[in-house]
Amino acid sequence: MDIQQYMQTVGRQARAASRAAARADTNQKNRALVAIAAAIRRDAAALLAANGEDLTAARAAGLEPALLDRLTLTEKGVAAMAEGVEQVAALPDPVGEIADVKFRPSGIQVGKMRVPLGVIGIIYEARPNVTADAAALCLKSGNAAILRGGSEAIRSNRAIAACVREGLAAAGLPDTVVQVIDTTDRAAVGELITMREFVDVIVPRGGKGLISRLLAESRVPMIQHLDGNCHVYLDDAADAAKALKIVENAKTQRYGTCNTAESLLVARSRAAELLPPVAAMLTAKGVEIRGCAETQALVKEAKAATEEDYYTEFLAPIISVKVVGGLDEAIAHINQYSSHHTDAIVSENYTAAMRFLREVDSSSVMINASTRFADGFEYGLGAEIGISTDKIHARGPVGLEGLTSQKWIVLGDGNVRG
Amino acid sequence: MDIQQYMQTVGRQARAASRAAARADTNQKNRALVAIAAAIRRDAAALLAANGEDLTAARAAGLEPALLDRLTLTEKGVAAMAEGVEQVAALPDPVGEIADVKFRPSGIQVGKMRVPLGVIGIIYEARPNVTADAAALCLKSGNAAILRGGSEAIRSNRAIAACVREGLAAAGLPDTVVQVIDTTDRAAVGELITMREFVDVIVPRGGKGLISRLLAESRVPMIQHLDGNCHVYLDDAADAAKALKIVENAKTQRYGTCNTAESLLVARSRAAELLPPVAAMLTAKGVEIRGCAETQALVKEAKAATEEDYYTEFLAPIISVKVVGGLDEAIAHINQYSSHHTDAIVSENYTAAMRFLREVDSSSVMINASTRFADGFEYGLGAEIGISTDKIHARGPVGLEGLTSQKWIVLGDGNVRG
Repeated sequence: MDIQQYMQTVGRQARAASRAAARADTNQKNRALVAIAAAIRRDAAALLAANGEDLTAARAAGLEPALLDRLTLTEKGVAAMAEGVEQVAALPDPVGEIADVKFRPSGIQVGKMRVPLGVIGIIYEARPNVTADAAALCLKSGNAAILRGGSEAIRSNRAIAACVREGLAAAGLPDTVVQVIDTTDRAAVGELITMREFVDVIVPRGGKGLISRLLAESRVPMIQHLDGNCHVYLDDAADAAKALKIVENAKTQRYGTCNTAESLLVARSRAAELLPPVAAMLTAKGVEIRGCAETQALVKEAKAATEEDYYTEFLAPIISVKVVGGLDEAIAHINQYSSHHTDAIVSENYTAAMRFLREVDSSSVMINASTRFADGFEYGLGAEIGISTDKIHARGPVGLEGLTSQKWIVLGDGNVRG
Repeated sequence: MDIQQYMQTVGRQARAASRAAARADTNQKNRALVAIAAAIRRDAAALLAANGEDLTAARAAGLEPALLDRLTLTEKGVAAMAEGVEQVAALPDPVGEIADVKFRPSGIQVGKMRVPLGVIGIIYEARPNVTADAAALCLKSGNAAILRGGSEAIRSNRAIAACVREGLAAAGLPDTVVQVIDTTDRAAVGELITMREFVDVIVPRGGKGLISRLLAESRVPMIQHLDGNCHVYLDDAADAAKALKIVENAKTQRYGTCNTAESLLVARSRAAELLPPVAAMLTAKGVEIRGCAETQALVKEAKAATEEDYYTEFLAPIISVKVVGGLDEAIAHINQYSSHHTDAIVSENYTAAMRFLREVDSSSVMINASTRFADGFEYGLGAEIGISTDKIHARGPVGLEGLTSQKWIVLGDGNVRG
C-alpha cells in the first residue's frame, strides 16, 4: 500500500464529506448518531470478538497489563459506548448559532455564526471506545473526522467503524464523514499531521510521549493536552477543614488522572497547623510525601523533594510539598512549575482568592474546590474530546463548542462602504 | 551579535514581562497608552528624522515605489499614530471579563474568565505605524509583545520603540512589555517563530510570500492572514440596483485591499440582464474583465479567464467573472476558489441568502453588502491586529478579544468530587 497516496485519498474524501457534515441539520446528525448506537448494540458480539482478537495479538506481543486493560472491551463497555453516542445526540447542536448581531453606524448588521472547523484528525492509543466517542462528537459539531487509533486496537476499531459508517449512511450522510485509518503503518500519522490542505486541526489523545512527538512534527494546528501537574495552595486564610477535604479528594480520589493534584503549597504562617494533619491523612492512604526542608521539619515521613519533583506529574501516590511565603510566592511557583492544567487555592480571603483566580495562568483555576472537577462532564459540556493545556482556540475541557469556531456574518440591504 | 542568544534573552524578558502585563489593571494600561501617545507627539520631529534616514537608505538600495510609500511617515501620519494609540486606550478592557458562571449539580460554580494569551510575536513589513498599533493592542489586551519590523524601517521603529518604552515606564510597567527586535539579521525571525517556550502566538502582517514562508517554518501557533480572493455572487433573486452598487464598491473603491472583490459570479437566469450594466460600469472605471465563455458572449470587452485567474487575488483593476447555474454552483465554486476571507451574495430570496450565509466557509460571509466592510473598525472592534483567514482561535478581523482566550474558573466552598 502506498501510504501517502492512501492518506491523500482519505484527506480528499474527508474534505469533501466535511461540506455535507457542515450542511447536515440537527435532525439528520441525530438520526445518524442514534443509528450508530443501534448498530453498536446489535453488533456487540462481533465487536467483542474483534476485540478478543486484538487482545490475543497484544498478549502475544507482550503488551503491558495497563495497556491491555485499556484495550479491553466488555459487554458493559460496549453498552456504555452506545449510550455515549446517544448522549451526544441529546446535546444541543452548536452549529449555526448566531450571536451578537448588532447594527453598525454604516447601516450593516454584524454578528457571528458558529460553524464547524472542517476536518478533524484524532490520534489516540489503546482505548477503542474513543473511536465511537470521537466520531460522535465530530459529527454532532458538523465536522468530518479522520480517526487514527493504536495499531493494537485495529480490529476493534474496524468493527466500530463499520457501525459508524452504517449509521451515517442510514441518515443519508456520506460514510466518509468519519474515516478510520485502516493501516497500522506509522507513516500514516506522519501524513495525517502534515496534510494542511485536508486537515484543519489535530486532537491527540494519549500519553505525553505521543503528544510531544506530534507537536514536534505537526504542520496542522493541534488542540494539545500535555501533562497535568496540578497544584493545591493552602493560603494564609485557608479554612483547615476545607483544606484537608480538598487535598484528600484532589490527591487521593484517583491517582492516574490528569486533574489529580501532584503538588501541595502551604503558606508559611499556617504550615505548622495545616501540614501535619494533611500529611497524616496522605500517609495513612499510602501517599509518599516529597517536601522542602520546612516540610521535612514538620512532617517526619517526608522525603526531600528535588527540583525535578516540582515539575513532575507523578500519576501515582506521590505528592510534592513546598512551604511558601504567601500568595505571591504561590502564584509565582505555580506559573513556573505547573503544566497550566488546573490549580486551586484554599482560602477564605476574598482578595487573595480573586488574585489567585486572575493571576494563575492555567486552563482551569479554582477557589475552594478540588482539582478533580476539571472535566467536561463536571463543567456541563456533556462530553469532551480532550483537555487542552494550550492557550490558543480552546483551553481546558473541550466539548462540542471547541470543535467549532465563529465566522463573521454581515446582513445588509445593499450597503456599500463610504 | 549571537542572534540565538539575543532572541533567547528577548524571549525570556517577554515571558517575565507578560506576567506584569497580565496583572496590570485597566487604568495602568491606559496611563501607559496615553504616555506613549504623548511621547510620539513630542518626538514627532525625531521620528520624522529617523524615518528620513530609513527612506534615504531605502532609495539607495533601490526599494520599489510602493514599498517606499508604505515606509514613509508624514507629520499627519505621526499624529494619526498617536491618535490610534489613544483610541486603543478608550476601548473596553477585555481582560478579566467573567462570563457564563453557572451552578452545577455538584455545587461548584463554573464559568470562564478572559485572559491574555501571554507573549505575542508580530512580524511585519515596511509600515512603521504597525509598531505603535501592535504595541498598543498587545498592551491593552494584557500581553507582552515582541515586534519584528522590516529591516528597511529599523530606524523609524527604533524611534517609536523609545516612545513605547517611555510610556510603559511612566505607568510603572516593565519596559520589556513591548520589545522591538533591534537587528536586521533575518535569523532573528527564525528564532522568534520557533521559541515555543517564550512565544504563545505569532501574528504576521505582510504579503503572501512572508506568510507562506513563516507558515512553513513556524513552530508557534499563528494567526495567519493569507490572501483575500473575495467573491460577490449575483443570485437568481438579486436586486439589480443593489447588485450594481455592491459590485462597484466591492471592486472599485480600492484595488489594493484584501477585502476587495476579485471575482464575480452571476446566476445564469439573470446573466443577460445583470452582466452588461455591471461590465459597463467596470469597464468605464478601467477594470479589466476576465470571464468564462458565457461572460464573453455577453460582454464584448471580456478576455478569457484561465483556471488560475479564479484563484487569483489581483490587487489590481482586474476581475474574474463566471456565469454559474445558481446557488449550489456558486457556493461550491466559492468554497473551492475563495481564500476564505470574505464572500457576499446579492439576493432578495430569504432561503438562498440564509443558505449562502451558512454554507460558505469563509471568515466573513455577507448578504447584500460590500465585501469592503470586512474590517475591524467597520465591525466595531475599535482596532484590528490583522484579519485571520484561519479557522482556529479567531476568524476574520482580529481585535483585542482575539489576543485573549478564556480560561475556566471554578468557585467552590470546599467542594470535592463524588
